[in-house]
Amino acid sequence: MNGPSLAIRQRSLGDLTAEFPLFPPLTRGCPKSSTDEIAYPLEVGYDYARVDPGLFDQTPGTDIARWSPLLPPLAAPTLGEGGTPLVEFEGIHFKDESRNPTWSHKDRLNRVTVSAALAAGAPGVVVASSGNHGASAAAYAARAGLRAIVLTSADSPPAVQAFARAYGARVVSVPAEARWPLLREVVDRLGYHPVSNQTVTHTGHPFGPEGYKTIAYELFLQLGQAPAAVFTPTGYAELLYGVWKGFVELKLLGLTGTTPRMFACEPAADGPHARALATGAPAAIVETFPSAAYGIAGPVGGHRGVLAVRDSGGEAVLVTDEEMRLAQRDLAGQGLWQELSGAAGVAGYRKLRREFGGPVVCVGTSSGFKDLGVGAQTYPVLEHPTLDDLRA
Amino acid sequence: MNGPSLAIRQRSLGDLTAEFPLFPPLTRGCPKSSTDEIAYPLEVGYDYARVDPGLFDQTPGTDIARWSPLLPPLAAPTLGEGGTPLVEFEGIHFKDESRNPTWSHKDRLNRVTVSAALAAGAPGVVVASSGNHGASAAAYAARAGLRAIVLTSADSPPAVQAFARAYGARVVSVPAEARWPLLREVVDRLGYHPVSNQTVTHTGHPFGPEGYKTIAYELFLQLGQAPAAVFTPTGYAELLYGVWKGFVELKLLGLTGTTPRMFACEPAADGPHARALATGAPAAIVETFPSAAYGIAGPVGGHRGVLAVRDSGGEAVLVTDEEMRLAQRDLAGQGLWQELSGAAGVAGYRKLRREFGGPVVCVGTSSGFKDLGVGAQTYPVLEHPTLDDLRA
Repeated sequence: MNGPSLAIRQRSLGDLTAEFPLFPPLTRGCPKSSTDEIAYPLEVGYDYARVDPGLFDQTPGTDIARWSPLLPPLAAPTLGEGGTPLVEFEGIHFKDESRNPTWSHKDRLNRVTVSAALAAGAPGVVVASSGNHGASAAAYAARAGLRAIVLTSADSPPAVQAFARAYGARVVSVPAEARWPLLREVVDRLGYHPVSNQTVTHTGHPFGPEGYKTIAYELFLQLGQAPAAVFTPTGYAELLYGVWKGFVELKLLGLTGTTPRMFACEPAADGPHARALATGAPAAIVETFPSAAYGIAGPVGGHRGVLAVRDSGGEAVLVTDEEMRLAQRDLAGQGLWQELSGAAGVAGYRKLRREFGGPVVCVGTSSGFKDLGVGAQTYPVLEHPTLDDLRA
Repeated sequence: MNGPSLAIRQRSLGDLTAEFPLFPPLTRGCPKSSTDEIAYPLEVGYDYARVDPGLFDQTPGTDIARWSPLLPPLAAPTLGEGGTPLVEFEGIHFKDESRNPTWSHKDRLNRVTVSAALAAGAPGVVVASSGNHGASAAAYAARAGLRAIVLTSADSPPAVQAFARAYGARVVSVPAEARWPLLREVVDRLGYHPVSNQTVTHTGHPFGPEGYKTIAYELFLQLGQAPAAVFTPTGYAELLYGVWKGFVELKLLGLTGTTPRMFACEPAADGPHARALATGAPAAIVETFPSAAYGIAGPVGGHRGVLAVRDSGGEAVLVTDEEMRLAQRDLAGQGLWQELSGAAGVAGYRKLRREFGGPVVCVGTSSGFKDLGVGAQTYPVLEHPTLDDLRA
């Protein structure tokens, strides 16, 4: 829509001197700097000198192709992702990503990663996911005429499994420990393009966070400035890193003098980024305890989140399920129904209770329909209702 | 955002000479022309001569207040409704209304009707609804600091009941025949503002379709012209009428020379608008047969839909559940997962198989998460999955 992609290479986040061609996407992390304990992701480099400054005179809207020069090539058709509103909540700005085509932020990522699958000539995409990522990948694959295999697990809510199935994906629930070996087999033997992680610490798809950058572009235009702080629900921290990278680019392009502090809001039940930041490790794997925030709960962190928090002067914030529940309830009490994970950013902001001297953004990632247990409760019919029943 | 409302009066659709002040909204239909068999709705009149033509130089976006001069006063805060994308599907334009704050078109209506409740000084809103309307009213009421009572029935899916409850509404499931008497009691004795219908044939809230007009404004700007035909899922036809009125206004303001033909796509299980149009009646009540398209199924039609179809040179199209299921499946196969009702517009377009000599729009109203039975099916975990299981 706005000219060809200016993406020119992949660059290692483990060894900044290690550069690779843009294609093929190195979906198993940096082959040079990764070790058996830590896998380092790659990121995409652009020919920033050729970016038309008029690019940011645009209004945000529902197709991230408006930012095409600063994205990898978008071979996959749009479903109308992006252009989500900022809604006021308790004095902060709530970025409602439940307003995307499959009702989560993941659509921004999958527009980009499914495009990479098309460019690779793959017959389909494969993803290990219990939630939004799988359904979103299935939707974008369907749109692009590709097959999709979603490896899910027993903790995925039935409604969310129906969701991914609706798009025609092959959805198979397998034991958690079987997911990664199976994903690798699908990649190696069927030639499917992987759009989720395959490495010991998280690296994911090198192009994925590029889609999330568009949130930063939108926030900058919606606020008329960069915010002072951004809080995001954090699992693997691809969202956190992508938003951070977008602001770094805006600064590089001379559009903003400041960048926000980035806050990784993780379930207290695990918190791999909090651990890595506390210990100085490039990434961490931690023990997990049960959490209903299944969209972001997990033992494995990645180096991207560590970089975003550290370089931005932010922090990792651990939030309990109870703190997320309170944030979820209060958001809904203002007309914003998020799934439990989606309320983690607000929970993290409330927990810090800090002044930032500028706009604060909490990203909400997904609709309340995707939570565990939604629809499991039935309600009796009142045969002879009276006004008193309605007042109660 | 764009200046005060230019709404000046209510006008009867049963007797075009009968005018009433803008407030209070006549939520029980036209007191002059309605009879025991047919209730006539009212619509809102504006001081069109004072509309700044620059109003339509705007880009569509997520707050219908950008059209404030052509809406009743918007006292209720926004949740970021509107600005939904047009996505290509089988050569037509699919307007994806699942991208609203509560993931249906109803948010456009409820921004306006909850505003009326605030203006009336009511302590809350009351709505009879098994689906999207109730949850959307609950969300906007919560946002505005009003209470909400939702009278639902046994056919409302459990997930949809959880949805309305999430916003803090008092949701009570009552026998279908108890809903309207109870609603009237809540209005008369508790002073709640009704945002759903109270009359023998449908009249609904006189301000409701004004919110839907904004779909027409967006379509006009998104296409750069008025479409040749618009197909909408049709229950009470408030959406159909609202979209039609928006195009009539655009013509009145000299912005378009043409207006679209409007197609009311009703479940074949009932079809009150098809009946009224076939018999020349101003509105009809019909016998109903079972339909899973619970969002639009029902015996009661209204005069608005008859006017929109007749005055636009359109038709009512009856679609079977099977036809809606096929449309729903094929939409999802292109990455667009709608609830069954939401696919009725596409089903109707396919059924007619007609050339219109210009752009065709099918409105999709809501997300697939809201369908009956979503989440009811569970899927077994494959303990020892192989590649063959994934190919199947």
